[in-house]
Amino acid sequence: MASLEDIGVSALINIISAFAFLLAFALLRIQPINDRVYFPKWYINGARASPRHRGNNNFVGKFVNLNFSTYFSFLNWMPQALKMKENEIIEHAGLDSAVFLRIYILGLKIFGPITIAALLLLVPVNVSGGTLFFLSKELVVSDIDKLSISNVQPKSLKFFAHISMMYAFTFWICYMLYKEYDTVSSMRLNFMASKRRRAEQFTVLARNVPHGSSHSVSDNVDKFFNKNHPGHYLCHQVVYNANKFGRLVRRRHRLQNWLDYNQLKYERNPEKRPTLKTGFLGLWGKKVDSIEYYTQQIKEFDLRLTMERQKVLKDPKCIMPAAFVSFNSRWGAAVCAQTQQSKNPTLWLTNWAPEPRDVYWKNLAIPFVSLSIRKLVISLLVFALVFFYMIPIAFVQSLANLEGLERVAPFLRPVIELEFIKSFLQGFLPGLALKIFLYILPSVLMVMSKIEGHVAFSVLERRTAAKYYYFMLVNVFLGSIVTGTAIEQLHSFLHQSPTEIPRTIGVSIPMKATFFITYIMIDGWAGIAAEILRLKPLVIYHLKNMFIVKTERDREKAMDPGSVDFPETIPSLQLYFLMGIVYAVVTPILLPFILVFFAFAYFVYRHQIINVYNQQYESAAAFWPHVHSRIIASLLISQLLLLGLLSTKKAANSTPLLVALPILTLTFQKYCKSRFEPAFREYPLEEAIEKDTQDKASEPEINLKAFLADAYLHPIFRSFEEVELTEVKVEKSPDPVPSQPETEPVSPTHSHSPSPSHHSHEHEQEQEHEHEETTTVQHYEVGPPANVYQYGYAYHENIFHYNVNSYQETQHDAQHDYIVESPHSYYHY
Amino acid sequence: MASLEDIGVSALINIISAFAFLLAFALLRIQPINDRVYFPKWYINGARASPRHRGNNNFVGKFVNLNFSTYFSFLNWMPQALKMKENEIIEHAGLDSAVFLRIYILGLKIFGPITIAALLLLVPVNVSGGTLFFLSKELVVSDIDKLSISNVQPKSLKFFAHISMMYAFTFWICYMLYKEYDTVSSMRLNFMASKRRRAEQFTVLARNVPHGSSHSVSDNVDKFFNKNHPGHYLCHQVVYNANKFGRLVRRRHRLQNWLDYNQLKYERNPEKRPTLKTGFLGLWGKKVDSIEYYTQQIKEFDLRLTMERQKVLKDPKCIMPAAFVSFNSRWGAAVCAQTQQSKNPTLWLTNWAPEPRDVYWKNLAIPFVSLSIRKLVISLLVFALVFFYMIPIAFVQSLANLEGLERVAPFLRPVIELEFIKSFLQGFLPGLALKIFLYILPSVLMVMSKIEGHVAFSVLERRTAAKYYYFMLVNVFLGSIVTGTAIEQLHSFLHQSPTEIPRTIGVSIPMKATFFITYIMIDGWAGIAAEILRLKPLVIYHLKNMFIVKTERDREKAMDPGSVDFPETIPSLQLYFLMGIVYAVVTPILLPFILVFFAFAYFVYRHQIINVYNQQYESAAAFWPHVHSRIIASLLISQLLLLGLLSTKKAANSTPLLVALPILTLTFQKYCKSRFEPAFREYPLEEAIEKDTQDKASEPEINLKAFLADAYLHPIFRSFEEVELTEVKVEKSPDPVPSQPETEPVSPTHSHSPSPSHHSHEHEQEQEHEHEETTTVQHYEVGPPANVYQYGYAYHENIFHYNVNSYQETQHDAQHDYIVESPHSYYHY
Repeated sequence: MASLEDIGVSALINIISAFAFLLAFALLRIQPINDRVYFPKWYINGARASPRHRGNNNFVGKFVNLNFSTYFSFLNWMPQALKMKENEIIEHAGLDSAVFLRIYILGLKIFGPITIAALLLLVPVNVSGGTLFFLSKELVVSDIDKLSISNVQPKSLKFFAHISMMYAFTFWICYMLYKEYDTVSSMRLNFMASKRRRAEQFTVLARNVPHGSSHSVSDNVDKFFNKNHPGHYLCHQVVYNANKFGRLVRRRHRLQNWLDYNQLKYERNPEKRPTLKTGFLGLWGKKVDSIEYYTQQIKEFDLRLTMERQKVLKDPKCIMPAAFVSFNSRWGAAVCAQTQQSKNPTLWLTNWAPEPRDVYWKNLAIPFVSLSIRKLVISLLVFALVFFYMIPIAFVQSLANLEGLERVAPFLRPVIELEFIKSFLQGFLPGLALKIFLYILPSVLMVMSKIEGHVAFSVLERRTAAKYYYFMLVNVFLGSIVTGTAIEQLHSFLHQSPTEIPRTIGVSIPMKATFFITYIMIDGWAGIAAEILRLKPLVIYHLKNMFIVKTERDREKAMDPGSVDFPETIPSLQLYFLMGIVYAVVTPILLPFILVFFAFAYFVYRHQIINVYNQQYESAAAFWPHVHSRIIASLLISQLLLLGLLSTKKAANSTPLLVALPILTLTFQKYCKSRFEPAFREYPLEEAIEKDTQDKASEPEINLKAFLADAYLHPIFRSFEEVELTEVKVEKSPDPVPSQPETEPVSPTHSHSPSPSHHSHEHEQEQEHEHEETTTVQHYEVGPPANVYQYGYAYHENIFHYNVNSYQETQHDAQHDYIVESPHSYYHY
Repeated sequence: MASLEDIGVSALINIISAFAFLLAFALLRIQPINDRVYFPKWYINGARASPRHRGNNNFVGKFVNLNFSTYFSFLNWMPQALKMKENEIIEHAGLDSAVFLRIYILGLKIFGPITIAALLLLVPVNVSGGTLFFLSKELVVSDIDKLSISNVQPKSLKFFAHISMMYAFTFWICYMLYKEYDTVSSMRLNFMASKRRRAEQFTVLARNVPHGSSHSVSDNVDKFFNKNHPGHYLCHQVVYNANKFGRLVRRRHRLQNWLDYNQLKYERNPEKRPTLKTGFLGLWGKKVDSIEYYTQQIKEFDLRLTMERQKVLKDPKCIMPAAFVSFNSRWGAAVCAQTQQSKNPTLWLTNWAPEPRDVYWKNLAIPFVSLSIRKLVISLLVFALVFFYMIPIAFVQSLANLEGLERVAPFLRPVIELEFIKSFLQGFLPGLALKIFLYILPSVLMVMSKIEGHVAFSVLERRTAAKYYYFMLVNVFLGSIVTGTAIEQLHSFLHQSPTEIPRTIGVSIPMKATFFITYIMIDGWAGIAAEILRLKPLVIYHLKNMFIVKTERDREKAMDPGSVDFPETIPSLQLYFLMGIVYAVVTPILLPFILVFFAFAYFVYRHQIINVYNQQYESAAAFWPHVHSRIIASLLISQLLLLGLLSTKKAANSTPLLVALPILTLTFQKYCKSRFEPAFREYPLEEAIEKDTQDKASEPEINLKAFLADAYLHPIFRSFEEVELTEVKVEKSPDPVPSQPETEPVSPTHSHSPSPSHHSHEHEQEQEHEHEETTTVQHYEVGPPANVYQYGYAYHENIFHYNVNSYQETQHDAQHDYIVESPHSYYHY
């Protein structure tokens, strides 16, 4: 057990490393050459086209900051980060980011008063107890323990102080949570009300469309919704299975990268044309000219792509039993999304369509029966992963020891036998498997969530966050408190009585306070400081800059703004809440460390959100109910553990007082759920009709059908052959003749145009879990949106690089394109 | 432990008593004087107006059956009960009753093959084992145990037979359940589709209407729905708080009964006018003429009622924040019922309105916050009741012993000291409290459900059934297996490990088989035979006949057809399923007893449903999902218990095979829930629009507004002053001029008529948990429904007796009234 000095040393080390990161960040961020790494958001939204620091217009000044005065204001990003107001952040980065920041503020609001109260009231109570002073000869007692509940004698009446503080803390936390839920839900409603007309407000995703024997899916959809939503149904877009097409696009894109690389090489060294061997891995085979080879290959691929595309459009087998169904009013869509359509409740499942950029196409085709089986399998797998993940790792570790290595590679023996290498490897190898596992864990969980069959990236991220939280709760929190692996814990929990479990854990809690303090400093302080440095994107950007980037546009592509990594940040935030709430009564000295974490992380993430991150979708804070309910879960856990702890302290007269607390907390949670959660699940009709009325008043002549026609058209397809598109667009361009879709009869042929531009494509980019460089290109409309009727709002689409050229040519006058490369945007593998 | 002979003796006793009941029933049912007790359903639906057996037209023949040949066909009700086909039963008694009978058939279908398989395959396996033959000297072993799993040696490979049978049984039960759920859900949809136009198809119950500061509730409703459901909203009816009015009506009704009684007394004995004393309990005070006194009193009450009624209608405080909102199409109502209306999700809660006769008015006004608190409190109370009910009973028992009695009433001492009285009392008194408790338990649970705040009798009955099931599961099933009271069990369960609990119970299971066989014979065989005898209604009917009945109409009122007592019968049915499933593998010899129960109960309830019961509401088999999920729960319990049992048998190699079974069962349950349950919760739009189209085609000129205007008007109010009603009805009578509500503009003044007949009253009849004789009068429309536009279908209303007179006078030409007295119709106190 660590003493106060040990903690001090650890704190010193972590503070120094945190400052080192901050210093490195301060130095790197003011170099113009890194401007696109540390301020990509400003490039993306068009506020900046080239580095700001251009005082010295010489050659060196373009890459290195020569204005030395800026080197001294090394923390000046902090006040800068605070300048922006919340509504500006919502405008600038979306509601998701703004509400994400609010979680840190909530942490400060919750733990600030709790820290003061606990330090002022509980610590004196604990210190004056003094069991440990008597026992100190037998036990190894730390100074921290003198401040904790361990120091109070069994059967002491002082436990009433702890119990009443637990009550006070619970009420305070519930009050803050209630206020915050209220605020966030009204922010969400306001945000949705303030949004411009968007396709997803009018669109519902219908899944499990039955296959009529004679009719096509599209006819079925038209017939069904014309019949059951007469006067509201407008049009629909069917979903195509374009997995193979997506794979081809990806391979063509890789060829394009190689071509760019070789062309750049040739430009820099014009004497020697680059060559390559066509055989396996370029190791043997015929030697050919690289540039010609790749140009030829790309030409062939374009042909194959065209053919594949024709096949997808023609083949009825490629049509998935799902469709995006659009209505002529928000009211109609809200009604369809919230009601049961068919007599068979497994057919015609309707739900709000995700944002176009949020759709995860691949999962749209999963049938109903398969969904429940998938959910079962995945929940079993998650359970196994949480409790048995050590088994395969131990197996790999047993293989990866030195003897195994020597047997596999006998020629390495002389090297391995060296003493210092041997000891290094022996310390290093067993941990390697675990490190790799923990590194790839979020990706594995994301794959699991994808297999579960969710159709939006936002939902996938939330589900992944949930799984990650379970893993952290069992393996980080409980695993640190109760010694032994998770599987041993599971075994002992199954064979212990239910009342014994909180006791076993509760007893160990005060003893582990120092461990968690160290954890907070490493993960929370130094880890967050490392986050702001963005080492990985920095390196990757400069590598790309060196090898691929030819034009300014390529440089835009090479930027990787990233986004708030919800699947990892939210569970770890919840872990901090859990630690804070559990230790608030037990070892209050832990609380200041948590406070520092919340404050510091708030600064860092505020800076990143303003300057760096570029969210891939906007879910309007849909993750909030999960954050809320997990904080409530933390409360319940802390109450149960305190109950267990006190029951071992023989505080029989006071312990029963705690029993009411979990019941009250659960009731509070139930109330909050019914009071606020509908705002996150449904779209109230009152709101829908209000917006509809406003719209009708402000733009009575809008052609909604044209606006919605290609909203859910896959961007790959949209930009593939612009010629075909423009043909279609003639009919969709803003019509001077007022045409009200509400009154005109909806004809099936009208709503489902036979032109291929009405079909959506699936691209398989996210399906293959390789670490390849799939360059996604993002479009931002800047300035007055000339073709607002086609795009509706400045959303950003994943368009593959090679399509941009043709797209650019035809659309160059209409819109301004920023092209950004973001290989790790949604996920991390 | 009972031997086979003991079981035989018990079986003999129970079979004899069951036959005695059947014999008594056979004799009593053919007496003309009992005709209204044993065939009330035929009187109610108008097929019979007087007893059939009128071969002898003399005076005696009216009361006693003199046709002796009918005495010999003593079981001839059985084939009669089977004659009616299922669709005829649906027509005759409703879908609830028909599906209720299907549960028994399901029991036969499930347990028939299981019994054969278990007896043919498992019993030989068990008998050949023969552990018990070796151990018989040490243990008291019954013959039953030789046939059970106890007889198999530990570690035997024979357990594979039991495990594979468990798998086979589980799959068989799931298959049958799936088929049954499919059938029942399509029966429900067909039933709802075949129903004539009914008010509840167009009506939604809106609760938590916000109180506008200046506007009335009614104006608020009009404004809100006109705005948010334009083109669909038709009209609404506000709900009045008429609790006090209801109490007055009830007291007036009691006076009327006394008046009737005294008038009858005077008629039979015209020499002496009946008198009474006006003081406390008629024990002292001034002596007055009874008939004059009651006539005077009733006159005064009528005045007070009129005033109270005026007050209710005038006072805005009596208007509850709830309204029945009607739409001009089923589609509009389905949309409103399934969507969220307001931005604040606790306001404007919309749900399908229950049938008018199913509404529980009192709970309509409960605010949202209160609802969740009520649910919490009641669930805590139910938990306490299930686990701690023995505490107050033990307390009462300790008071009610002989010493206590002597102390309270010393004058009884000489009597109590007599030896045989003393021993009788000592055996009797302690059990009395328990008997009384178990007798009133369903009523207590019903009160709890009412406090929970459900707004329909059907929901109240389902919630009561759920509570009763928990009670039976813990106290009858687990309580019989594990010795000790429920509170002791709870304590040991809390302090045992989760894996220990199924072991503890599992081990005791085979030993308790004889107990459950006896239970089945007493409760299932003799109890069901007692059900058909209807002893209590028989006695009450004849008492009323003697003292109150004057006219033929009074006799109709004195009939008490009762109804299927869902809160009690469904939980006990589920208990039989549980016993059957648990013992199918363990002690198969129990299965034939269960089969006999299902077959016999099927006959009895079929007879009762055809001839006796008169359902108070029609929920279209809404209870089915509960039945289904509790059979699934029984499966899970049986699997866990078998797991526990086998783990004590050291069958380590075979036991893990069972672990997959609960997971598969849970997945099946989840699938069924999503596949079928929406049919029981929502109304698909496809169905709604189909019916709307049919309606428009068949009756294009219907005035829907008139049809809906007083559908949810409380019957008390409707019949109170028929004069006012007729004024209103002028405008509602079928209009020869075609008026289509879908197209005409809905004006607020039109939809909410200022006439008081548009308001609904609450009557408080069910709130007081006294056993008093609140005579509810039921109206049945027979023959061509002349005013179908006002009533829609032959529903029956609770109208208080004294209102019928005026009602009769004005409505006599329009409809035929059957008036039936049913004090215990919905509930049992």
